[in-house]
Amino acid sequence: MSGREFFTARTVAEARAGFRPANRTDIETVPLAEALRRVPAEAVSSPSALPGFTRSTVDGFALRAADTFGASDGLPSYLELLGTVRMGATPDVAVRPGSCVAVPTGAALPDGADAVVMVEYTAETMPGTIEVTRPVAAGAGLVRADEDVVAGGPLVPGGRPLRPAELGLLAAAGVTSVPVHRRPRVAIVSTGDEVVPPDTAGLRPAQVRDATAPALAGLVADAGGVPVYAGIVPDERGALEKTLAGLLDEADVVVVSAGSSVGARDETTGAVSALGTVWCHGLAIKPGKPTLLAECRGVPVVGLPGNPLSALVVFRLVGMPLVWSVAGCTSVPPEPSTRARLSRNLASAAGRLDVVQVRVRDGVAEPVFGPSALLSVLTRADGYVVVPEPATGLDGGADVEVILYR
Amino acid sequence: MSGREFFTARTVAEARAGFRPANRTDIETVPLAEALRRVPAEAVSSPSALPGFTRSTVDGFALRAADTFGASDGLPSYLELLGTVRMGATPDVAVRPGSCVAVPTGAALPDGADAVVMVEYTAETMPGTIEVTRPVAAGAGLVRADEDVVAGGPLVPGGRPLRPAELGLLAAAGVTSVPVHRRPRVAIVSTGDEVVPPDTAGLRPAQVRDATAPALAGLVADAGGVPVYAGIVPDERGALEKTLAGLLDEADVVVVSAGSSVGARDETTGAVSALGTVWCHGLAIKPGKPTLLAECRGVPVVGLPGNPLSALVVFRLVGMPLVWSVAGCTSVPPEPSTRARLSRNLASAAGRLDVVQVRVRDGVAEPVFGPSALLSVLTRADGYVVVPEPATGLDGGADVEVILYR
Repeated sequence: MSGREFFTARTVAEARAGFRPANRTDIETVPLAEALRRVPAEAVSSPSALPGFTRSTVDGFALRAADTFGASDGLPSYLELLGTVRMGATPDVAVRPGSCVAVPTGAALPDGADAVVMVEYTAETMPGTIEVTRPVAAGAGLVRADEDVVAGGPLVPGGRPLRPAELGLLAAAGVTSVPVHRRPRVAIVSTGDEVVPPDTAGLRPAQVRDATAPALAGLVADAGGVPVYAGIVPDERGALEKTLAGLLDEADVVVVSAGSSVGARDETTGAVSALGTVWCHGLAIKPGKPTLLAECRGVPVVGLPGNPLSALVVFRLVGMPLVWSVAGCTSVPPEPSTRARLSRNLASAAGRLDVVQVRVRDGVAEPVFGPSALLSVLTRADGYVVVPEPATGLDGGADVEVILYR
Repeated sequence: MSGREFFTARTVAEARAGFRPANRTDIETVPLAEALRRVPAEAVSSPSALPGFTRSTVDGFALRAADTFGASDGLPSYLELLGTVRMGATPDVAVRPGSCVAVPTGAALPDGADAVVMVEYTAETMPGTIEVTRPVAAGAGLVRADEDVVAGGPLVPGGRPLRPAELGLLAAAGVTSVPVHRRPRVAIVSTGDEVVPPDTAGLRPAQVRDATAPALAGLVADAGGVPVYAGIVPDERGALEKTLAGLLDEADVVVVSAGSSVGARDETTGAVSALGTVWCHGLAIKPGKPTLLAECRGVPVVGLPGNPLSALVVFRLVGMPLVWSVAGCTSVPPEPSTRARLSRNLASAAGRLDVVQVRVRDGVAEPVFGPSALLSVLTRADGYVVVPEPATGLDGGADVEVILYR
């Protein structure tokens, strides 16, 4: 690793486009009941046409459209009723000229019929004779056997997390399991001599409980990954390097939640550098500048800033897309957002992405300010506003997009 | 149940506001690692102040602000360096007038200090003497012991699903488990003589695989519930009533995915009516009109339309809020959405909510039309546009909100 690389700072846009470790999780086949939001390894096609048979879409009478030509209240068509199709049963009677067969919604169309007239436009004036008072066009009141999906046609695309409706379409086609990328295992290592586990009851003044790791675990889960806690490592390069080396064998992404001191950051950089290639050290983002991105044996390693607020902002913008990407996802699900009016001017520096926490009330986005050391700045916010890299700020009163927390 | 109630149709707004079965799931305590998106039964307060000690937010020197009054490059203040505070360690030295102590970011402030000057504005000109070239105000470069959260102050509200950052704040306060509402068990019963399980290999013409249940299961999971498949019941009132009666003992919400025929819908209505009170039968929504809402022994029962598309539209708008509500949620997480320009006029009827599936490309929302019998209408869409109840349509070119699928 050269000194030049070591000090290279990048923009968030460059990191998102350029930092692309090639590893992808392997492929496993899961049943539909476990497939929600999983990423199909490739597009899935339908083994057969759907619905697979011509199907009525109304309650009515299957008939030949030509037999209803010119039908009206004054001059109905009279058709012989040959029988009734039962739900789920293959029709055992065919429609011939001048006749019809009763069909419920969803039933199979009998042979010979090319349309279904709704029961509302008919009357059974005499037993066995149906009076039709409206003309129907061929193809009315039905879906064709391959109108939902043609045989071999696409059910779901590859690379996009499966949505609820897609699980339904797969089930309709009889596809009850899907090859998907394994959920990425995301190891979370905390460092910092001041950091103690969350279940530490009594703290000495100067100690803090590890708040970042549990929050990161939530973001990892939101990105479809499996968080793996790797514990708290002291601010000592040898210890961290040893821990990281072990994690590289079992994790698909490694996240180092650094202690807040310069010392802790330096140890992280040293340990990561020894194990792979540092892609950038420093991101043009506020908060979150002291971020390190590296690739070690094909595994992306993200070194986060020490302040929990900064760490979570950076992980949301840079880490979560990486987790999705490692799972083969090429189309990340959209985040909730809303438009709001910014309550006041926001200053920024050109070339730097600013992430400003906001509360939203009655369509107004009110910035929540406070030191990055305060996690409550994040928990009091409803979402955040981004001041883009080229901008030098945003004007009060501007219409802005707020990415909402959920 | 009176005939009047039986035929009462309601608007979606009325259903959302007025159909409120009182049952809530009971409360269980879960560890933070399982608490993401769970609904706290009540607000959680902090047992102690956070961070709990006065903490430096910069790398620099803890000092008395008064000692830097008027300091400049030309006329620095000279302070005696008494020592260094280590990360995580309680300071063993106090600052007195004319002195300072080195502190890393995140370390505890020594007694006697009321500010921290950044190292950038200092120089150690002689060993043991620090030159400060800027005045600092009292309170600069630090966070107070209770600045993140005061003792007894709020960590998370009740009734709102827990967010990643909130897991972090709870951890910071040493709250490692949370009383939350049990995930609602949502029983999904399918009916319809034409419906067969998704793993049915060869279909007879006229049979369809159960597509709605797996898709509903996905929506239930998205609403924080646990889907419970209750199988496929034939279109026979006795069988359905018996199944429903059993489910009411173990489920928190019951969803009946009806067969598509009038017969199947009638059997559902009959069975549900026998077990409880029908709140409405018919919703002013398109698609999805033949929707039934009932309360049976305190359990909400949702009878969905037979077409998968209609069923999923209704469940998203009416069923998912019910699942959240049963889990004690009073603040449902926002859905992804985007603004887009509608590509063409959409007609609607006043008093009815229309849900129109759309694809979104380059800021244009293009409706995806097709019979409700086609599930592919839903899977081809990126989201949907709502034509509100009072409107008689939307104009092409209008700026509309698209709720996006994820």
